[in-house]
Amino acid sequence: MSQTDIPGYTYGTDAVPRSPVSLQELELLEATLLLGDDDRAALRRSGELLAPQVEEILDVWYGFVGANPHLLAAFSDAQGRPDQDYLAAVRRRFGRWVLDTARAEFDQAWLDYQHEIGLRHTRRGKKNQTDGADAADHVPLRYVLALLVPITTTLKPFLAKGGATPDEVEAMHAAWVKAVLLQIILWSHPYVRDGDF
Amino acid sequence: MSQTDIPGYTYGTDAVPRSPVSLQELELLEATLLLGDDDRAALRRSGELLAPQVEEILDVWYGFVGANPHLLAAFSDAQGRPDQDYLAAVRRRFGRWVLDTARAEFDQAWLDYQHEIGLRHTRRGKKNQTDGADAADHVPLRYVLALLVPITTTLKPFLAKGGATPDEVEAMHAAWVKAVLLQIILWSHPYVRDGDF
Repeated sequence: MSQTDIPGYTYGTDAVPRSPVSLQELELLEATLLLGDDDRAALRRSGELLAPQVEEILDVWYGFVGANPHLLAAFSDAQGRPDQDYLAAVRRRFGRWVLDTARAEFDQAWLDYQHEIGLRHTRRGKKNQTDGADAADHVPLRYVLALLVPITTTLKPFLAKGGATPDEVEAMHAAWVKAVLLQIILWSHPYVRDGDF
Repeated sequence: MSQTDIPGYTYGTDAVPRSPVSLQELELLEATLLLGDDDRAALRRSGELLAPQVEEILDVWYGFVGANPHLLAAFSDAQGRPDQDYLAAVRRRFGRWVLDTARAEFDQAWLDYQHEIGLRHTRRGKKNQTDGADAADHVPLRYVLALLVPITTTLKPFLAKGGATPDEVEAMHAAWVKAVLLQIILWSHPYVRDGDF
């Protein structure tokens, strides 16, 4: 929510519309996910460890997407050519997303920005608009949801590279699974039929 | 897919329509989830450990749902009264679901039944029909997705109760996270706008 020079990063600004999900609904969702104060503390500890490693983490994640044509398709045009500018623009916001997730401030501004991120994955929302990209008009929801596993699994070695005990690494990893699942659930809202979310 | 006397358990029968998801799409989804042969083996090992503990596992899961009014609502009528017959009928299929997940036979019959399970959670599908229940007409998708965490977290102590090493328990737990996520993604299909899954 601080000012950055990252194009398209509008967290905390008037450019972000209000989320259709209320803070009360968010609280029930957190309870369902067993996401509590211990997890928020673990996420914040993880932020200190991960901040200096963000570029390496993004290398791993982009390597995974690049190695899977069905995922790279989200960044590619009708001829299957990846849009390198689009990939680079998303990468900067993705790096920032790591830090924002680790800050664990799940307040109204954060909630609103999750809905904005969801819209940017969909054809009815804003996919490609933010970056003027020539690419597929949506990311299929099934892949948005499935990425929970590669995102959090590949994070684990980075969480372990800072002298934390195995139990602390487990706690940080578990907190990341909850925090990423919470977000992809919120991102699913624009995909879901009216009233079914 | 074997014959059982569980009412409404139609896995492998002609009563189950074909899934709109193809086996090829399922394979790409498994790849995205990093779900491989090691996970299938770990699931099968888990089945031997979990089979004698299924009733205790269901006690924990039903305890969690019962303690959370926003989840119990799926089993309750307009006056908020839980339908005990409905809870009991779902419980028998839920126990069977543990064994079916651990069998890890992700073939056409399994895929078809996942779509059937998804439909049974939705208002456009078959919620309440199978059991003639008087209850809420759908389970909100956000709770279907969020239950990944309590389901797999509460399973861990049961996985540890059979002499498996800590590494084996971790492997079985990770495989369960992937297998449950795979299923709730498939269950989300009827909730999602046409073409967005």
